Amino acid sequence: MRALTRYLPILTWGRTYDRNALSNDLIAAVIVTIMLIPQSLAYALLAGLPPEAGIYASIVPIMLYSIFGTSRALAVGPVAVVSLMTAAAIGEVAQQGTAGYAAAALTLAGLSGAMLLTLGFLRLGFLANFLSHPVIAGFITASGILIATSQLKHIFGIDASGHTLPHLLESLFHHLSQINWITLAIGAAATGFLFWVRKGLKPLLLNAGLGPRLADILTKAGPVAAVVVTTLLAGVFRLDTAGVQIVGAVPQALPPFTLPDTSMELIRALFMPALLISIIGFVESISVAQTLAAKKRQRIDPDQELIGLGAANIGAAFTGGYPVTGGFARSVVNFDAGAETPAAGAFTAIGLAIAAVALTPLIYFLPKATLAATIIVAVLSLVDLGILKRAWTYSRADFAAVLATILLTLAFGVETGVSAGVVLSIALHLYKTSKPHVAEVGLVEGTEHFRNIRRHKVLTHPRVITLRVDESLYFANARFLEDYLYDRVAEDCGLSDVILQCTAINEVDMSALESLEAINTRLKGLGIRLHLSEVKGPVMDRLRRSHFLDELGGKVFLTQYEAWTHLTRPPRPKAA
Amino acid sequence: MRALTRYLPILTWGRTYDRNALSNDLIAAVIVTIMLIPQSLAYALLAGLPPEAGIYASIVPIMLYSIFGTSRALAVGPVAVVSLMTAAAIGEVAQQGTAGYAAAALTLAGLSGAMLLTLGFLRLGFLANFLSHPVIAGFITASGILIATSQLKHIFGIDASGHTLPHLLESLFHHLSQINWITLAIGAAATGFLFWVRKGLKPLLLNAGLGPRLADILTKAGPVAAVVVTTLLAGVFRLDTAGVQIVGAVPQALPPFTLPDTSMELIRALFMPALLISIIGFVESISVAQTLAAKKRQRIDPDQELIGLGAANIGAAFTGGYPVTGGFARSVVNFDAGAETPAAGAFTAIGLAIAAVALTPLIYFLPKATLAATIIVAVLSLVDLGILKRAWTYSRADFAAVLATILLTLAFGVETGVSAGVVLSIALHLYKTSKPHVAEVGLVEGTEHFRNIRRHKVLTHPRVITLRVDESLYFANARFLEDYLYDRVAEDCGLSDVILQCTAINEVDMSALESLEAINTRLKGLGIRLHLSEVKGPVMDRLRRSHFLDELGGKVFLTQYEAWTHLTRPPRPKAA
Repeated sequence: MRALTRYLPILTWGRTYDRNALSNDLIAAVIVTIMLIPQSLAYALLAGLPPEAGIYASIVPIMLYSIFGTSRALAVGPVAVVSLMTAAAIGEVAQQGTAGYAAAALTLAGLSGAMLLTLGFLRLGFLANFLSHPVIAGFITASGILIATSQLKHIFGIDASGHTLPHLLESLFHHLSQINWITLAIGAAATGFLFWVRKGLKPLLLNAGLGPRLADILTKAGPVAAVVVTTLLAGVFRLDTAGVQIVGAVPQALPPFTLPDTSMELIRALFMPALLISIIGFVESISVAQTLAAKKRQRIDPDQELIGLGAANIGAAFTGGYPVTGGFARSVVNFDAGAETPAAGAFTAIGLAIAAVALTPLIYFLPKATLAATIIVAVLSLVDLGILKRAWTYSRADFAAVLATILLTLAFGVETGVSAGVVLSIALHLYKTSKPHVAEVGLVEGTEHFRNIRRHKVLTHPRVITLRVDESLYFANARFLEDYLYDRVAEDCGLSDVILQCTAINEVDMSALESLEAINTRLKGLGIRLHLSEVKGPVMDRLRRSHFLDELGGKVFLTQYEAWTHLTRPPRPKAA
Repeated sequence: MRALTRYLPILTWGRTYDRNALSNDLIAAVIVTIMLIPQSLAYALLAGLPPEAGIYASIVPIMLYSIFGTSRALAVGPVAVVSLMTAAAIGEVAQQGTAGYAAAALTLAGLSGAMLLTLGFLRLGFLANFLSHPVIAGFITASGILIATSQLKHIFGIDASGHTLPHLLESLFHHLSQINWITLAIGAAATGFLFWVRKGLKPLLLNAGLGPRLADILTKAGPVAAVVVTTLLAGVFRLDTAGVQIVGAVPQALPPFTLPDTSMELIRALFMPALLISIIGFVESISVAQTLAAKKRQRIDPDQELIGLGAANIGAAFTGGYPVTGGFARSVVNFDAGAETPAAGAFTAIGLAIAAVALTPLIYFLPKATLAATIIVAVLSLVDLGILKRAWTYSRADFAAVLATILLTLAFGVETGVSAGVVLSIALHLYKTSKPHVAEVGLVEGTEHFRNIRRHKVLTHPRVITLRVDESLYFANARFLEDYLYDRVAEDCGLSDVILQCTAINEVDMSALESLEAINTRLKGLGIRLHLSEVKGPVMDRLRRSHFLDELGGKVFLTQYEAWTHLTRPPRPKAA
């Protein structure tokens, strides 16, 4: 039973579900549904899929997440970055607009779902931690720029393609002569209006006496107004005959049952993209879920979240959708509108299903430029170039990771960018720990404390030196320590004792153990004793299992002060 | 001038070269030359190349290393593991015995040389540290097994091929009916004799009154005796007519001038193998060089070693050789024989050049089985399965790395094995640091020391807890700390203060900074103050450059004792 409630969180919240929660969830669902209709259409456009795919991807996946997910407020569906990654991945294997393209989207969602489920069952949620914050920030910023640029073609009413900034810009520039001015007028007006809604409408509504929550929700509904107005304009004046691209006929139906293409060739080609989409989607989703849960002192289980998102993506694969994840904007709206349980998500799904059946004829004349405008305005809020300055101030390594991620994402696309960011973060971390800070320390007079002799006035001894290595000892820095010690010993002929103060050594792996053995042997040969002080419990346990302590030329001291007083007793210490 | 002596170590030792050094170097060169002739032929056989390639690979490369290398005793040339890797790499792109095969070997040496030079000029010698000791030990052991197995076909006188243990064994078994019994007799006798020389001859010689050094050198010359005897046997009885494979005609010439094949396709195919050969070769070479240098208190410059080995490989590429590196056996013989400077290497090269011109007709009847026996006996000393037991006792992570390296090398070949070993070592290290040890500490009564409350009897306080994280805070464990703290705070309602004791925190990267900010904000919301104690200098410098300290709910204390006394003053502490 405990295992069952772990894998089915619905059993926990479902048991206490009451009338009050129901009414709150219903209100939230109505608000989110209205907001999701244009957003789902727009992201499907971004992914290069027919508009209904966006709505389908919001129905069954939301329901499945509400059964398996642990977040009470997360709204699952198509999101901007994942839509962009989907377009980039499928663009490699199929031509946009073909049946193969939509089928590949299903396969991508299925693969991603299977991966998320696997990671969840194996409890590997911690893997997402290897995406460092600077890499994520850089990636999201670059993706925002790429997405906004990719939508310019709809604003201008021209053809353009590409998944990298140079390609997109070149393609846009190349087709610039084809500009459709009516499309541009609609696109520019919609973009301007949406920016104004985002920045100027809320203060206005607040001044007009509306409550802050209502003002907020009305602001978030801005895209709906843009959709209604531009659709009416296009319909009344038949702007499609003037070359304005419109959404056109969308099937009036519930999500179809679809089977993803399972050819090995396609799976091989989509494997890496699916993995990256899974990880990026998971990181985005878990960040949102944790932020919202924290506000109500609820807890999120990352491994169960993987299962919830995995189920959602499997659902998307079988119902005409494409890869989904927990979206930031929709989840915040859901939360602000008062959603109390995942049932709100299920009600949203029902709302969207009704829309899919009943409302699709109404968006026949919806200009694609309007959808592009909603995407541009949404993603530009993701662009945060300030991260570069903050990273530069704080740490050069983090700055390098952000900059590389941004530049590589823009220049070579999302997959290269995020992969390079992860590899670079890990490489920089390993590089830093491979050349650890080593301080030679002395006794602060009148205390039992030891400090760096270069920074503090401390007592030293001509024949006894103490080195404090500020890093765990492992294969990447094992040889560094050897070199450092040999150099230090070579320059000082009168040494009798070397103490290694192990305060910051949290681990000694087998490579480092061999280095310590080599150091000990070498120092013995020079008539110098090697001592250890303040070795941590787990490290000591492990050293006891080797022969190192038997062969150690010196002793292991519990505290550095004890080591010092013991070794410097006969000749009196002199001030440095 | 300093730059010049850095890149040309010959300018340093050459200036003080005298008669005494000359005579020592000459003696060492004669001994090494005699030992190298059969060894070079045997390793060429192992690499699948004509025997003369082994001798050519020992002439110009040695000379170039003696100009650019920093080790005084290192002997450069073909070695077992690199020969095996060469065979595996070239076997992928060309058929053994064809002109393309030998040309690919030149390309491999050229590529490897170029890579080593590049790494050297960029001072990237530290990269070799990412090969952990257990991975190297596992790789060498598995390579030894692979090499010995690959040579069994020459002992049995049958055809067999393959670069992995399953393939080799299957191929051997498949051809077992073809056994040539005379070849087997020669091979088994030679193997038995060489094992006896290794184990039994030295004590015998010592008992006979020979000096230990002379006994050692005579023991090392055992293969020469086996070569002479079996060659005479084969020649006198014309065993080749009975199906015994012999070396046959070897061109009587100095190393030819050769041009490596520089087609992009070949370079792309050999890129990864060349990189692995470079790194493995460098690691093997530098280990030997450092061991020998340490005995005479000399220093090795790893970056200059890269340049020396790079030059040697470039030399091999243009003179009919194949990838070379500093060999263990030959270097030890060189050192023991009294070599004082790299000039000994140059003299060895001259000796081998004379052998290439004058002695090759003498080895016409040398049975391949004898060469295989010398290889088998040499490499079986590399096999050390005891590493598995030592690693198991010491650390499960190291054990996993060794075991994976051994099994993957045997099952999928040298390249997969060593790559997997490196990746696994890094992954395990990251995994360990991503779930750091966190101790809740209390005051040891009567001291200023704080210890883990679960291990020691210490003073605690109902409203103040202190956590000591035994790891640097970086992206991989940033979220772990958040989760840990939220859980700890959630279970304890009366908390007013949380102290983070930062003794073992050597770094706080930007991801961890954001986690600390999130923790601080969350705790503030709960009415709990977050304090830091014993923050290291470099970490504090960095935190000062962010806004974290301005927003910190609590204070930063210089010592943990100060934090404790300050925060627990009003209500008196009680014993835990």
